[in-house]
Amino acid sequence: MRIRPLADRVVIKKIEAEEKTASGIVLPGAAKEQPQMAEVVEVGPGEVVEGKEIKMELKVGDKVIFQKYAGTEVKIEGTEYTILRQNDILAVIE
Amino acid sequence: MRIRPLADRVVIKKIEAEEKTASGIVLPGAAKEQPQMAEVVEVGPGEVVEGKEIKMELKVGDKVIFQKYAGTEVKIEGTEYTILRQNDILAVIE
Amino acid sequence: MRIRPLADRVVIKKIEAEEKTASGIVLPGAAKEQPQMAEVVEVGPGEVVEGKEIKMELKVGDKVIFQKYAGTEVKIEGTEYTILRQNDILAVIE
Amino acid sequence: MRIRPLADRVVIKKIEAEEKTASGIVLPGAAKEQPQMAEVVEVGPGEVVEGKEIKMELKVGDKVIFQKYAGTEVKIEGTEYTILRQNDILAVIE
Amino acid sequence: MRIRPLADRVVIKKIEAEEKTASGIVLPGAAKEQPQMAEVVEVGPGEVVEGKEIKMELKVGDKVIFQKYAGTEVKIEGTEYTILRQNDILAVIE
Amino acid sequence: MRIRPLADRVVIKKIEAEEKTASGIVLPGAAKEQPQMAEVVEVGPGEVVEGKEIKMELKVGDKVIFQKYAGTEVKIEGTEYTILRQNDILAVIE
Amino acid sequence: MRIRPLADRVVIKKIEAEEKTASGIVLPGAAKEQPQMAEVVEVGPGEVVEGKEIKMELKVGDKVIFQKYAGTEVKIEGTEYTILRQNDILAVIE
Repeated sequence: MRIRPLADRVVIKKIEAEEKTASGIVLPGAAKEQPQMAEVVEVGPGEVVEGKEIKMELKVGDKVIFQKYAGTEVKIEGTEYTILRQNDILAVIE
Repeated sequence: MRIRPLADRVVIKKIEAEEKTASGIVLPGAAKEQPQMAEVVEVGPGEVVEGKEIKMELKVGDKVIFQKYAGTEVKIEGTEYTILRQNDILAVIE
Repeated sequence: MRIRPLADRVVIKKIEAEEKTASGIVLPGAAKEQPQMAEVVEVGPGEVVEGKEIKMELKVGDKVIFQKYAGTEVKIEGTEYTILRQNDILAVIE
Repeated sequence: MRIRPLADRVVIKKIEAEEKTASGIVLPGAAKEQPQMAEVVEVGPGEVVEGKEIKMELKVGDKVIFQKYAGTEVKIEGTEYTILRQNDILAVIE
Repeated sequence: MRIRPLADRVVIKKIEAEEKTASGIVLPGAAKEQPQMAEVVEVGPGEVVEGKEIKMELKVGDKVIFQKYAGTEVKIEGTEYTILRQNDILAVIE
Repeated sequence: MRIRPLADRVVIKKIEAEEKTASGIVLPGAAKEQPQMAEVVEVGPGEVVEGKEIKMELKVGDKVIFQKYAGTEVKIEGTEYTILRQNDILAVIE
Repeated sequence: MRIRPLADRVVIKKIEAEEKTASGIVLPGAAKEQPQMAEVVEVGPGEVVEGKEIKMELKVGDKVIFQKYAGTEVKIEGTEYTILRQNDILAVIE
């Protein structure tokens, strides 16, 4: 079973706090927009949405910082995913 | 009798909770946007709507995750359907 | 006397509840957007409105599902009509 | 003295209730958008307004249904007129 | 000293109530948008503003009806002027 | 040290009340949008901002009327400046 | 580890108050939009975002004034950064 996101959406899997500590990243709770780290597991086709061309800049496996309350959470076969728009991804961690 | 949706709308039929459990999908009630699974039963022509070209990415028979409170519910000949815009469909399950 | 709607508007005449029961359609009151069935009696020219081209997809005689609170009600020579934008028509019933 | 409306505006003169009864039109007060009948007395040039081309579909003498609270009322030489945008005119009565 | 308005703005000088009575124009206080009469004293260049081309339809000396609360009042050398966008001018009185 | 504004922004330095009295300009506190006089000290490049071409109409040294609460105040080396968008400048005083 | 911002976003590192005093810049707390000084440490590609072309005007090392509450704060390997859109950068200090 696979979630194929539509349009400019991506499916991400959150990276747990332990991993975050290991990589030295701390995301303070007091920040206005609470970001989180995640790994991209599916990328939408990035087609024309409402007359606007949207090019996908992300690929599967990218580690990203996203806006915490963006998107929709879904649990498939025991794993939690979030489906959100590419525009809710702030940055890629390299 | 058939519902032919206009523009970029689709008609979907919700997949019951039992089916969802069978496929291993759990949609937590606490999620910000409560998604649900459904099957696409009719797809609009995807023509120009308010000057914007919208291409339909869905086809009849697609299993989809949609945003719960999107669209309009209609009961035709004993079956409940939802008419909603393609943009309210988040992903296709394969 | 005839109502000629401007731009992308249509004039519809609601189909009474009795007819709806006969055709087996029930529109639950609890739905977020309360739709209703109606017959299209006049279709606007679908010209350019505020720089956007709108093509009319409806024709006189179409049975449609529309959003209940959309549009403006007018009574002409004893008959009640509703004038609304094509975008407030959700689907055609065939 | 003449009111020359700018852009996509029209000047209309309301048709009194007596005339409405004569023509058999009743506009119920409970309608969401309270329409009224009027006669078009001046039509703007319909030029480009804020980068959008607007074509005038109305002409002087047209009997129209408009949205009651749209526009601005002006009394000139004892006669009350309303200046409003063409988009606030719903239909022409023929 | 001269006020040169930018973009699609015009500078107008209100015509006092006495003059209005002389010309037979009465602007009722109960109107939704309270219009007023004024004379155009400066007209902006009507250039491209935020990517939209705006053509000036007004010229110095035009008597206009404008929306009362639109724009900004300035007193220069004892005279009160209002700076407002052309779109807030409803009509020209001829 | 110099403030180089981005896009369609300008940097202005307010002209004090004494100067205003000298030039005969009084800006009444009761006006809806409280304007003020200022001198332009830096002008942005006026490039494409969010897909819209914006041409700068102002130059360094222009005396302008701007909307009081627009923009951001900054004090650099003892002098207070305001950074605001060109669209918040209403007119140039000549 | 490096934060690569997407689209028209930049990553900035705030310049502390001590540095600000040294450079003679004071940012008053009473200002409507509370700006701050920062140094740009990463610049996004500035590609097409939602159908609009955005050209990046900033480069790594630029000292900028930005709007205080704009963007998202992230702490990576002990250093705090802010990810924000180029449009939230008001000016470059030279």
